Amino acid sequence: MNDSTTVSTVPQGVTAEFKFLSGVRIVDFTQFEAGPSCTEALAWLGADVVKIENPKMGDPGRRLRPGLPDTDPYYFHVFNANKKSITVDLKSASGLNLVKDMLKKADVTIENFAPGAIERLGLGYDVVKALNPGIIYAQVKGFGEGSPYEKNLAFDMIAQACGGTFSVTGDRDGPPTRPGISLGDTGTGMLMAITILGALFKRRETGEGHRLQVAMQDAIMHYMRINFATQGLTGKAAERGGSKVVGVNNAPMGLYPCAPGGPNDYAYIMTSRANPDHWDRLLKLIGREDLIGDKRYLTPADRVAREAEVDEIIATWTRQRSKHDTMRLIGEAGIPAGAVLDTMELHNDATFEQRGIMQTMKHPLHRDFKMPGWPVRVDGKPSTIKASPVLGEHTDSVLAEWLGLSGDDVGKLRGEGALG
Amino acid sequence: MNDSTTVSTVPQGVTAEFKFLSGVRIVDFTQFEAGPSCTEALAWLGADVVKIENPKMGDPGRRLRPGLPDTDPYYFHVFNANKKSITVDLKSASGLNLVKDMLKKADVTIENFAPGAIERLGLGYDVVKALNPGIIYAQVKGFGEGSPYEKNLAFDMIAQACGGTFSVTGDRDGPPTRPGISLGDTGTGMLMAITILGALFKRRETGEGHRLQVAMQDAIMHYMRINFATQGLTGKAAERGGSKVVGVNNAPMGLYPCAPGGPNDYAYIMTSRANPDHWDRLLKLIGREDLIGDKRYLTPADRVAREAEVDEIIATWTRQRSKHDTMRLIGEAGIPAGAVLDTMELHNDATFEQRGIMQTMKHPLHRDFKMPGWPVRVDGKPSTIKASPVLGEHTDSVLAEWLGLSGDDVGKLRGEGALG
Repeated sequence: MNDSTTVSTVPQGVTAEFKFLSGVRIVDFTQFEAGPSCTEALAWLGADVVKIENPKMGDPGRRLRPGLPDTDPYYFHVFNANKKSITVDLKSASGLNLVKDMLKKADVTIENFAPGAIERLGLGYDVVKALNPGIIYAQVKGFGEGSPYEKNLAFDMIAQACGGTFSVTGDRDGPPTRPGISLGDTGTGMLMAITILGALFKRRETGEGHRLQVAMQDAIMHYMRINFATQGLTGKAAERGGSKVVGVNNAPMGLYPCAPGGPNDYAYIMTSRANPDHWDRLLKLIGREDLIGDKRYLTPADRVAREAEVDEIIATWTRQRSKHDTMRLIGEAGIPAGAVLDTMELHNDATFEQRGIMQTMKHPLHRDFKMPGWPVRVDGKPSTIKASPVLGEHTDSVLAEWLGLSGDDVGKLRGEGALG
Repeated sequence: MNDSTTVSTVPQGVTAEFKFLSGVRIVDFTQFEAGPSCTEALAWLGADVVKIENPKMGDPGRRLRPGLPDTDPYYFHVFNANKKSITVDLKSASGLNLVKDMLKKADVTIENFAPGAIERLGLGYDVVKALNPGIIYAQVKGFGEGSPYEKNLAFDMIAQACGGTFSVTGDRDGPPTRPGISLGDTGTGMLMAITILGALFKRRETGEGHRLQVAMQDAIMHYMRINFATQGLTGKAAERGGSKVVGVNNAPMGLYPCAPGGPNDYAYIMTSRANPDHWDRLLKLIGREDLIGDKRYLTPADRVAREAEVDEIIATWTRQRSKHDTMRLIGEAGIPAGAVLDTMELHNDATFEQRGIMQTMKHPLHRDFKMPGWPVRVDGKPSTIKASPVLGEHTDSVLAEWLGLSGDDVGKLRGEGALG
């Protein structure tokens, strides 16, 4: 199907090419992460996703630098697997016409340019709808239409600050803190992917197109709902609690330091308020049977009142064990526990690759790169990762497949500067 | 359609009932957040989502306490809007048969019980597939099949610790920190919703059912991809950087303290490395034209080398202004900036309700509750929020609609204890 397709190095048969969206054509104007994470999810489900890229530097997420070697392809890899790339100069008349011809053949188009940019390119909703009334036209912006900030640029950090996640992350007495994941981007992309798929489902029946719009600030609030629920109960803004969960009154619960004391040598342990056995089991495991039934620590409320003492009882034991042993032993005692794992530990844990959750992208230009793929399994298998496209790699093949253009036709367009 | 449907108080016509999934029937066994967030997204797109609940306490996310008043409905509200609830005792033979009859009529079923529980109930994949070969059978667990921890319970915090988010959140020299959002739950639910929708789309063509499975640990890694990309470049585990973005070498960038100095009085400011004008514009805005062209701060690299000095230059100005003024003034200068907003500030900002992003849930038992709804707009409108269901509210109406049962039939089932 795709001449650049390469196979990853996970065990044979562990992954499969998903075909759920086979035949669905997507004209993809997206850049960086919020848009590309959305179209990559659709590509992993089998859609034919064609990136329309600027001939000079492409998606700025490629991090190409004029005149310098391409040495940082990883950001682009992780958000653009399984897609195709064509280069088109949208500022040339024949380039713009070419893209309009593609939009006539498309089921979906999506962009996340700065506010107003797609309209300035001559590809606003009204134009595209007139070309193809059945198209699903999707837009991702930083702030919503009607927001006082609707014209502002936003990056992930801005959307997260304005959507609330900073306010609930960090130490109780410290400043707000950025969560270390790009939820403003990928979190938004996932909500748009869901809505596009809903529209596609209905469209099989009605043939109707729709305009879909999401703002990153608004999308972040979707992921903040548990904090809004806490506020509903307390009547005040949700607070930060370090690694404790504010609003869940139970102890012990939290992060405990483990041997040998490195920056990520911690394990999360969570006894259940609803299951009083957890505390007794934990005391037994750590050799503190003497405290079973001790009135100071009898109920969840007692333990919350003496949380620092309770935490130290646990930490005295965890400090002598690795986080992996802590997770295993506490887990075996039937108490939820998890080691804090960093990206290198996850990378080096072979069980992820054996299950196809991590796969190695093989790429025609760049070194092999192991990355997480689509984590939902269909009939036991995750979706196979294919290479992210080289800039313009599929210009000829896509123009032939979508528009029936011959090599001569494409050569002519190239001569006119339409393709860069 | 639904006798308990109540209308929210957003301005007339700002929201709309989405019909993308109208006619899609979902038998929903989910509880807490990871599963319910998935089916709520599908309900907001128009699916008929029926929660099968334990007659005594229902979904434990209801936080009902035996013999005590129901005073904490907020957690349940935010993850169960627009759904129906029926009560069934799955341990009674006629209750189990009733649910099997519903599964025969369903397009999708989903559960997120502890590992092995759905099989013990007699509703494992093979059983349900035999009843309805076209069903999409979805499962959410903490750890993946084949993981050393596949039998372990996981809650959001455990999945986040083991999936990497703690390792990249918090101060550079401090301990790993829990991001204050429940990404292990809702983040997983969104990826399952996408996959269910992909399967539903294809099923319109093929009629084929599928088994879908996702693990919360694996799902978290999807949201960690930017950190895996950073690791690809540096060759070492992604690190924490407080509110700086590790791997993005630019200054100024980060969180700056604002007046009057409250716990969330900060603004994020981000100058672009690619746009050298940002620094000069910022200096002009803050009245430090004297530093324009100053060799100490000329290039991004110079400013990174003197980051503490650069940050103090900015903070001297931001400390004298509110975060809202900071956001507005810096934004107007064309530099991305965002105030850190907490849940109460978001709650009190009327522009969200005017745009239908926040809506007020009106509920037959509980007080009005303002909450974020589905943030993606379709043809300009977000989806209308309807009440979360009272436990068992729709038992009679769903059994009539789905199975054609009469009031007498339902009374008989009730007499047998099938419905609790």
